[in-house]
Amino acid sequence: MKVIIVKDYDELSKVSAQMLIGEMFQRHERVNLAITAGTTPIGMYEKLIPEVKGKQYFDNVHYYNFDEIPYKSGTREGVTISDLREMYFTPTAIPEERIHILDETNYKEQDKRITEAGGLDVILLGIGADGHYCGNLPGTTNFDDFTTKVRCDEVMKERIAPHFEDRAETPDFYVTMGPRSVMSARHLILFASGEKKAKVMKAFVEGAITAEIPASILKMHPHLTVIIDEAAAKLLDKEK
Amino acid sequence: MKVIIVKDYDELSKVSAQMLIGEMFQRHERVNLAITAGTTPIGMYEKLIPEVKGKQYFDNVHYYNFDEIPYKSGTREGVTISDLREMYFTPTAIPEERIHILDETNYKEQDKRITEAGGLDVILLGIGADGHYCGNLPGTTNFDDFTTKVRCDEVMKERIAPHFEDRAETPDFYVTMGPRSVMSARHLILFASGEKKAKVMKAFVEGAITAEIPASILKMHPHLTVIIDEAAAKLLDKEK
Amino acid sequence: MKVIIVKDYDELSKVSAQMLIGEMFQRHERVNLAITAGTTPIGMYEKLIPEVKGKQYFDNVHYYNFDEIPYKSGTREGVTISDLREMYFTPTAIPEERIHILDETNYKEQDKRITEAGGLDVILLGIGADGHYCGNLPGTTNFDDFTTKVRCDEVMKERIAPHFEDRAETPDFYVTMGPRSVMSARHLILFASGEKKAKVMKAFVEGAITAEIPASILKMHPHLTVIIDEAAAKLLDKEK
Amino acid sequence: MKVIIVKDYDELSKVSAQMLIGEMFQRHERVNLAITAGTTPIGMYEKLIPEVKGKQYFDNVHYYNFDEIPYKSGTREGVTISDLREMYFTPTAIPEERIHILDETNYKEQDKRITEAGGLDVILLGIGADGHYCGNLPGTTNFDDFTTKVRCDEVMKERIAPHFEDRAETPDFYVTMGPRSVMSARHLILFASGEKKAKVMKAFVEGAITAEIPASILKMHPHLTVIIDEAAAKLLDKEK
Repeated sequence: MKVIIVKDYDELSKVSAQMLIGEMFQRHERVNLAITAGTTPIGMYEKLIPEVKGKQYFDNVHYYNFDEIPYKSGTREGVTISDLREMYFTPTAIPEERIHILDETNYKEQDKRITEAGGLDVILLGIGADGHYCGNLPGTTNFDDFTTKVRCDEVMKERIAPHFEDRAETPDFYVTMGPRSVMSARHLILFASGEKKAKVMKAFVEGAITAEIPASILKMHPHLTVIIDEAAAKLLDKEK
Repeated sequence: MKVIIVKDYDELSKVSAQMLIGEMFQRHERVNLAITAGTTPIGMYEKLIPEVKGKQYFDNVHYYNFDEIPYKSGTREGVTISDLREMYFTPTAIPEERIHILDETNYKEQDKRITEAGGLDVILLGIGADGHYCGNLPGTTNFDDFTTKVRCDEVMKERIAPHFEDRAETPDFYVTMGPRSVMSARHLILFASGEKKAKVMKAFVEGAITAEIPASILKMHPHLTVIIDEAAAKLLDKEK
Repeated sequence: MKVIIVKDYDELSKVSAQMLIGEMFQRHERVNLAITAGTTPIGMYEKLIPEVKGKQYFDNVHYYNFDEIPYKSGTREGVTISDLREMYFTPTAIPEERIHILDETNYKEQDKRITEAGGLDVILLGIGADGHYCGNLPGTTNFDDFTTKVRCDEVMKERIAPHFEDRAETPDFYVTMGPRSVMSARHLILFASGEKKAKVMKAFVEGAITAEIPASILKMHPHLTVIIDEAAAKLLDKEK
Repeated sequence: MKVIIVKDYDELSKVSAQMLIGEMFQRHERVNLAITAGTTPIGMYEKLIPEVKGKQYFDNVHYYNFDEIPYKSGTREGVTISDLREMYFTPTAIPEERIHILDETNYKEQDKRITEAGGLDVILLGIGADGHYCGNLPGTTNFDDFTTKVRCDEVMKERIAPHFEDRAETPDFYVTMGPRSVMSARHLILFASGEKKAKVMKAFVEGAITAEIPASILKMHPHLTVIIDEAAAKLLDKEK
């Protein structure tokens, strides 16, 4: 684990963008990236867009989403991919054949199709204040799960409901790459910004591997890079 | 995780030897191997010796032990390195400068010196019927430990005493690379032979990641190869 | 370039087999090997067959031929693939979907399909007493050629005629991966055995990069392993 | 070979900086970069400096120069390293222990010390209108040369004299990594900007491998990235 502490959100956005661009350039053959939706990457995507849009030299880069919350009605694409499209795929005009959607119809094939495509080069992921990553929330998946469907109890439904304008669209389940799927990637990048993440980052960096902080298992990966800004790092033991 | 099921101990010894030789050839630059003592590798070392002895083309290969049980008196080298010398380093005449001993005097530097040497290319390790690997026994290390010293209570002393002709030499502690040290290697090979390992292999391959079976954490490594013979595989779910 | 000098043909066969097996084990994902026909590999294939035949754990290994001399009538497969089938693919029962044939009908696509399959992990090739490798003979291809068709003049026809029982089958051209195709692989292994190769190996190892010894360009590859027996090495400068 | 055509010098500077930053991030262990002096990289270093200066997370990055023109008097450091210091090492305050100077006193050890340091991850190099790269000018080194000393005849002295305010400092020789040293790196990046490079880039990209254009040999590298701006690309065959 390499922990990179940056000054603020802007530097976090810049460094994570640099790292993704580095991955895109690392090979001339196909490069497979799984990237995150949510709020942490907003600044990064803003910086990435002008660097990626219209650049033929990134035609070897393929994209994956690592979780999906479907609309109950099934009448439109899920929350994650919609978010990724809006923030990144649409403004960069990435063609469909390089966007590999995970959803409720194909999640059982996710691990296999990734393996057949040569494996993921990198997964960029955020971490929740509760220690979750992707759709691996406390009490949902086990460390040894691969990509799976997670049933939503009422508490979970309450939690994901804000993603939906029409709450009736809140689904009974979501799908996510599980801990073992994530750990199979060659490089993991976890980033976190802001004081609201300070407590979980202390637990993550300094604490034990525990199911209560699902992301803690990621520390066992041989190639994990953590990027946090000073606010998120403020509780870390400075001596370390 | 790739599970290779071989016919018997002889094939297990052959395949693990082939895999180590493959690692030795994989690069012209320095290659770092951490290898195991114990009974499982006996047949493998017998096969390796004639392939390695006197071969200049393996001069780039460096060796590490991953745990050590010292003699209490400190008058001679520990159990693990003595065993490795007898089984492999002495018959192959590997020069001292390519044998990187871990012991009670230098364990705090083990992770750092491995990183500085470019990291371990592979760790070959066995598994105990209790799910232990290296010196990571149930109730000793935590998943997030690096190389560490483990205090021996009376139960542990009883357990390691058979390693010593003179039981007074049984030490009060041993040292071992911890779970995170092991998980930092680029490739892990775990092998097991015989019916006495069938139960633990079922738990390992099919069961959960749990501190009760310390080796279970190794399933989270992105590049783990498991080699077991039919006897050790006999309880595995054949459908999988 | 790493030069491995072995005692004799038997050790050369063993070491090259070990190296190929090492490549097969190096990744769990697809591994792409381009292997050679001819007389040098006969001993190696004999050693490989029992190690590969029926081994499910090598199901990730795909094979390519790097040149082909077609039968003029087109009524049967070419000389190279027929030779590879007889020596290796048939005795090991490698299924057709893992044998990627290069021939006169698809040579224009060879480089592209290899790139799309992730590139070649290794090419194992021999060297002729005239310095040729694959179908790159003096006066045929240029260093910057990719896979190409080589027209056979009368001299060349005379040369390849012995491959055909019915000399009327001698073709007007053959196809070969060119120097740049070969140099694109991640690892090159060149092997040579016997006194008849001593002169060309001296020129190869110690001499200049020159079109007169087509194989000399391979010395420019960042990961080239040369395996030669003492007879083939006998003219090498011992001081080096 | 991957050819990246960018709009202008500014984009060339940006893309080459992105690529170097990507290399710096690609591993947590030591990364070895050989970088170029001259005029082409001026814009790139300007962009790199704020990204690298004071960034602890790049402490794993080591730097090499690949050629050197010494001052005849030997009273000060050579032209290349002085140039690199001014453009990059001094403004970024890279500490001396991460700057690995090649000069006339140690050139015989250059290849060995690079190998012992794990090899070069990347060499970023320019190309002269005459097809030279590093100190490999037409008529100086051979394709199979490693790092070497090149004697300067009167023509060469005339050529390099402009580097020296006091022409009496023009040396009788310079040192350079040779073609085989350069080809040993894992990744080569060659960049060129401006119409004055259009002719040589056409010869480089579309022409033969020839000693008359020393850089042409670099096309044989399995991982070569070429970055050129539209002005330097203007003579390229658009159909390709």
